[in-house]
Amino acid sequence: MNTADLGLPVTVPSTALFTDRYELTMLQGALRSGTAHRRSVFEVFTRRLPEGRRYGVVAGTGRVLDAVENFRFDGAILDFLAAGKVVDDATLAFLADYRFSGDIWGYPEGEVYFPGSPVLRVEGTFAEAVLLETVILSILNHDSAVAAAASRMSVAAGERPLIEMGARRTHELAAVAAARAAFVGGFSSTSDLAAGFRYSIPTVGTSAHAFTLLHDSERDAFTAQVASLGSNTTLLVDTYDVAEAVRMAVEIAGPDLGAVRIDSGDLLLLAHRVRRQLDELGAKDTKIVVTSDLDEYAIASLAAAPVDAYGVGTQLVTGSGHPTCSMVYKLVARSDEAGPDAPLRPVAKKSMGGKASLGGRKWAARRVDAHGVAEAEVVGTGAVPEGLADRQLLVELVRGGTVVGREPLAAARERHRTALAGLPMSATQLSRGEPVLPTEYAS
Amino acid sequence: MNTADLGLPVTVPSTALFTDRYELTMLQGALRSGTAHRRSVFEVFTRRLPEGRRYGVVAGTGRVLDAVENFRFDGAILDFLAAGKVVDDATLAFLADYRFSGDIWGYPEGEVYFPGSPVLRVEGTFAEAVLLETVILSILNHDSAVAAAASRMSVAAGERPLIEMGARRTHELAAVAAARAAFVGGFSSTSDLAAGFRYSIPTVGTSAHAFTLLHDSERDAFTAQVASLGSNTTLLVDTYDVAEAVRMAVEIAGPDLGAVRIDSGDLLLLAHRVRRQLDELGAKDTKIVVTSDLDEYAIASLAAAPVDAYGVGTQLVTGSGHPTCSMVYKLVARSDEAGPDAPLRPVAKKSMGGKASLGGRKWAARRVDAHGVAEAEVVGTGAVPEGLADRQLLVELVRGGTVVGREPLAAARERHRTALAGLPMSATQLSRGEPVLPTEYAS
Repeated sequence: MNTADLGLPVTVPSTALFTDRYELTMLQGALRSGTAHRRSVFEVFTRRLPEGRRYGVVAGTGRVLDAVENFRFDGAILDFLAAGKVVDDATLAFLADYRFSGDIWGYPEGEVYFPGSPVLRVEGTFAEAVLLETVILSILNHDSAVAAAASRMSVAAGERPLIEMGARRTHELAAVAAARAAFVGGFSSTSDLAAGFRYSIPTVGTSAHAFTLLHDSERDAFTAQVASLGSNTTLLVDTYDVAEAVRMAVEIAGPDLGAVRIDSGDLLLLAHRVRRQLDELGAKDTKIVVTSDLDEYAIASLAAAPVDAYGVGTQLVTGSGHPTCSMVYKLVARSDEAGPDAPLRPVAKKSMGGKASLGGRKWAARRVDAHGVAEAEVVGTGAVPEGLADRQLLVELVRGGTVVGREPLAAARERHRTALAGLPMSATQLSRGEPVLPTEYAS
Repeated sequence: MNTADLGLPVTVPSTALFTDRYELTMLQGALRSGTAHRRSVFEVFTRRLPEGRRYGVVAGTGRVLDAVENFRFDGAILDFLAAGKVVDDATLAFLADYRFSGDIWGYPEGEVYFPGSPVLRVEGTFAEAVLLETVILSILNHDSAVAAAASRMSVAAGERPLIEMGARRTHELAAVAAARAAFVGGFSSTSDLAAGFRYSIPTVGTSAHAFTLLHDSERDAFTAQVASLGSNTTLLVDTYDVAEAVRMAVEIAGPDLGAVRIDSGDLLLLAHRVRRQLDELGAKDTKIVVTSDLDEYAIASLAAAPVDAYGVGTQLVTGSGHPTCSMVYKLVARSDEAGPDAPLRPVAKKSMGGKASLGGRKWAARRVDAHGVAEAEVVGTGAVPEGLADRQLLVELVRGGTVVGREPLAAARERHRTALAGLPMSATQLSRGEPVLPTEYAS
């Protein structure tokens, strides 16, 4: 594929170096020992949710598909590996021809997950599958962490829209992925133009204090903004005195003023005051946007306040206290010899220090009660019980190296909404608790 | 410049969309009101350090220079902005010709900072400076957060080398920046090949449990690894039984075995046991590398253990509890009219909700006591007092749009070491405390 299709403003000529060095040296060792082409199954899962969280949110799957498709060792990369003597010539020759030709199944993007859920399963030769560990984990661990925070904030915000504004608080490209994950988790828009460009997420913006300070007076600034952007703009009203700014905003823009933004102070108190003032001035349709270090708890505390939209930055892009998930990529089964039909043998690290894994290639299904509400995440390695066959969670994403599971981002967003609605009601409590579904193992 | 010089594996054709939408709409408003070309000074600073931290570490400055140099609105980007009606035609025309032509001064990379330190100062027209807000903050907030964690871990590790292994726990490109920031903060190497490629940071690697599980036995796996990579490799010894694995490792590789890695269990206990066993087996020079959710406290707790190197992942790339800094980009002074010689007027948001700023274009200097130990961070807007003139912290980075402050990454790493050594001894206590230097304001 044309790598430019992956999207400006950042073309990624290859994702192949988003890789830990040991993946290449393991490949070299396996090529040498003759085990490199053993059929292998790797699974991505987490042993636990972040403390107190009720559910996780799978996000980044679409980006994983881009990354796998684009995992190529081109000339410059091979030169780098050769110059640094990272691997030997035989391994370089293998890498030069590398294309992932295996299969990937996984929880579809936006789905919820629990401890032990096999959120992604990569199957192919050891050689082709082992190389994908780091880039897959980077994407899923980052994006799922942001989506989980976004989901909780969306629950707290109810029907009110959430605006992603966190670009300045995270790496400039992590920000683009964060805006994408936030959209999956329920956000409506982003301030990040790169996210609009790359993923067609609606972009929005208001104004900064600098714009007011640039002008000789707040009046001049408001006049300039309305003259340029129309009365449907959002005026920032907390540079000097909020009440005076609101009065002047309506005077200048008229009662059709789009919105005012409050970015500091006691947001609960100010929202009530400003709403009353706007109504008295006849600006009954002018909306109130609040920003300023919001998290899901702050959003929930404003539920009874006359707030029309929330702008969220830091706490969203840093996962609201949990900036990464603890997903791992583990070999769970492999054959004794090469070949696509060689029988698989379950493998697992021996239990020590809480890092034990369950061997074997897994299926997963969500069992529901008589009312259709989810009651357990069932994970197994044998045959799928009859009653769960049509409740399986993994879907086909890559078949024989070809991506078959691409979908519009809106589909993931909608899926998350549906998945959340299928969980017990306590899933959406913000307070700390256990995973809302137990994970049951059926072998 | 050739954007490819910014480095594979990711070429960034432009950094211009790492921008919040409001920066462009503010530009449009200012172009319309005639204020866009007022001379303006923006400063980057933080109002507080993360709770309990004694100092901050400036990192990302070199990346900021890349980003500014590469901040261009090309055809595809202009088309996107036009299609989405983000700004009007006059603004698009301005953007098409955009090149930052102003001056940037800042704390050099690796330097420490405190609340109120003006870590970066951008001076130019409002139009050219306002657009850089988001990309500058993204870089500095992310990279400085990682560098601060790295610095604390380096203090805890003493002379023992630290290996950055966090790529899988953060966004794939944030990982590359994190490896860079970790190097500035004192780490020695990284597992991330992209960071080696882009920044020439030494890359290292060991082996994963998957490699052992791929083979028919641990013996086969060790034999394969030693055959392929030589006896100077690092064998992972905790897949099954550590003592048995160590015995076999030395049997297979001989007493010249490079190192063993322990990735689970009670690291303190295991390090002692494994060291004793290695010594008894005659492998006195075989090193012990430990990994497994280390942070600065875990590293410190292993100070008395026979550990030779630490591999750190999650806690490093997530800033050890503080994944972002709270740096802001504020207009602190501007002229009443256009022109490079127009006199500057200090400006600042009125105090409310703890978001007050100090207006005026600032200098900063670190005052030392009679023993040459730093005793205060002095920040001022007037003339620099005589005794502080040669202790000023800001250096010239960009002059008239041309980068003049580029330096090798090793220089930033060395500077951090020197800066830390100049602070009071309590700076390097890991326990929570106040900033180790008070910030004094001299006007």
